[in-house]
Amino acid sequence: MTRTVLESKTKTVVIGFDEPFCVIGERINPTGRKKLAAELEAGDFSTVEKDALEQVACGAMVLDVNSGAVFTNRMAEDPRYADNNFVEPPLMKELVARIQAITDVPLCIDSSVPGALEAGLATCEGRPLLNSVTGEEERLELVLPLVKKYNVPVVAISNDDTGISPDPDVRFAVAKKIVERAADFGIPAHDIVVDPLVMPVGAMASAGQQVFALVRRLRDELGVNTTCGASNVSFGLPNRHGVNAAFLPMAIGAGMTSAIMNPVRSVEMEAIRAANLLMNHDANGGEWIRFSRILDAVKEGASFPEACAAQAAAGGRGRRRARA
Amino acid sequence: MTRTVLESKTKTVVIGFDEPFCVIGERINPTGRKKLAAELEAGDFSTVEKDALEQVACGAMVLDVNSGAVFTNRMAEDPRYADNNFVEPPLMKELVARIQAITDVPLCIDSSVPGALEAGLATCEGRPLLNSVTGEEERLELVLPLVKKYNVPVVAISNDDTGISPDPDVRFAVAKKIVERAADFGIPAHDIVVDPLVMPVGAMASAGQQVFALVRRLRDELGVNTTCGASNVSFGLPNRHGVNAAFLPMAIGAGMTSAIMNPVRSVEMEAIRAANLLMNHDANGGEWIRFSRILDAVKEGASFPEACAAQAAAGGRGRRRARA
Repeated sequence: MTRTVLESKTKTVVIGFDEPFCVIGERINPTGRKKLAAELEAGDFSTVEKDALEQVACGAMVLDVNSGAVFTNRMAEDPRYADNNFVEPPLMKELVARIQAITDVPLCIDSSVPGALEAGLATCEGRPLLNSVTGEEERLELVLPLVKKYNVPVVAISNDDTGISPDPDVRFAVAKKIVERAADFGIPAHDIVVDPLVMPVGAMASAGQQVFALVRRLRDELGVNTTCGASNVSFGLPNRHGVNAAFLPMAIGAGMTSAIMNPVRSVEMEAIRAANLLMNHDANGGEWIRFSRILDAVKEGASFPEACAAQAAAGGRGRRRARA
Repeated sequence: MTRTVLESKTKTVVIGFDEPFCVIGERINPTGRKKLAAELEAGDFSTVEKDALEQVACGAMVLDVNSGAVFTNRMAEDPRYADNNFVEPPLMKELVARIQAITDVPLCIDSSVPGALEAGLATCEGRPLLNSVTGEEERLELVLPLVKKYNVPVVAISNDDTGISPDPDVRFAVAKKIVERAADFGIPAHDIVVDPLVMPVGAMASAGQQVFALVRRLRDELGVNTTCGASNVSFGLPNRHGVNAAFLPMAIGAGMTSAIMNPVRSVEMEAIRAANLLMNHDANGGEWIRFSRILDAVKEGASFPEACAAQAAAGGRGRRRARA
């Protein structure tokens, strides 16, 4: 059975066919968050630290750390800041150091800048996940040596120099190529976590079925773990959480073993906990029963992160209030 | 592609691999509802009629009609009422007549009493589903001739004279036997809707995975449609709706094509609508968008049946209030 092992200094997380679904928290990412990018530019890491703690409390087993900030003010003063190869490596270093100082989960080092990937790997304790390699030639040549050098697992995204194919057979072929190229570097398939790319079902009606079929194939034919940006599937639709909350159990049933997602959402997390139970990845239903108490607290008026944090403070024994 | 065709006087519903999931409303069933049984004993059909209309408004495509009432008061006066062979046939006749007088969906004639099945078939317009045959010898011999005589599809439950096996391979073998015996009567596989039997996951940790694997096998090897009593899976667990709402999309992803369930529950119906969308069984997402408006009305304070009825009254064009 395929097992992808991630480690922090003190914790091991296994992504695998016989493991509970691995939730990788996506929030620490300035790419789509202007306010966060501005804070980072000002050297303010308070939101990052809050997001790290909150995501872990809500059930993130791994934290994605993306350094893709654009420093528009500094750029005006110093043109070097227009280059992300200049901005991201020290930023990644600082993000990783600060996050691993306050949390104990493995990290996922995420950047389009190879220098930032290496800075993250050099700073990170344990065995982080690297995010990401693609089927693009340049990217393969830059990232796979890092994967080998640091002996870490890597997310492999199924696009190549021709872009993202709408044809799932092409996306499978790209994944296969990455696995084969990795093998040339001595990187085993169990250290590749393929993202087959989830299209919005509102734009491509077959998007859901494509992913379910691809995940089964990736697992059966390549023996790899899989991940995805889960919320993509509902892009543009009303009541997105409802679509996500059906997509995740269906993807899990098809064999998907992790997702990069927002864990601070009770609807999606409930769907994942229930799917774990139904996949027989929750011995005696203990996790489901524990999670149901959090949902009870939410019904009584607590916010989801509050209820999660309170239960964590109570030692996960189902008390909703931390002891005085 | 397997298609099981059901008809009312005016409507056709197809259960099939390429069709939206078929929701069979389970509410009209006095077996577990003492108050309803007492009403039926008193000749009061108001709850039945309300339940029929409400289930259809909420999205039931077929209505199950179960005549399994115990008439405790009449029994005291007339010992014949202790025998369900005496009670159920006329009751089934009346139930079917009253329900088809006020709704236009196909019915599912449900009884353990063969005389009640035949009474229902004789009264019912169109092409109802018959519920059910099992692998029990006596039941096969009594029910399959009715299926043949009335040319209707039938629910086949995967237990036999030895009971319900916890071994999914045995349950598959029972289903296969029923399909073969039906073929001896000239009944085609596409008129058999197999219920592989869903165990409570709280009692049997592998129950979910068993069903998903069985559904795939029933579909691939026997080419039959499938159904289940969906809420069984969550029996005994806290927050049952959450488990059901993950189970249904996972079962749909595995190939399940119908369920006998309570459609007057927004959580489960939302999960099914989202799964239809993700299976590409909701052209242009029209049903999802329509359903999202119902959810909006629920958020604004309407009950789910109210919001559904209001939208139905507005002609399904998304208006939440009927025109004056």
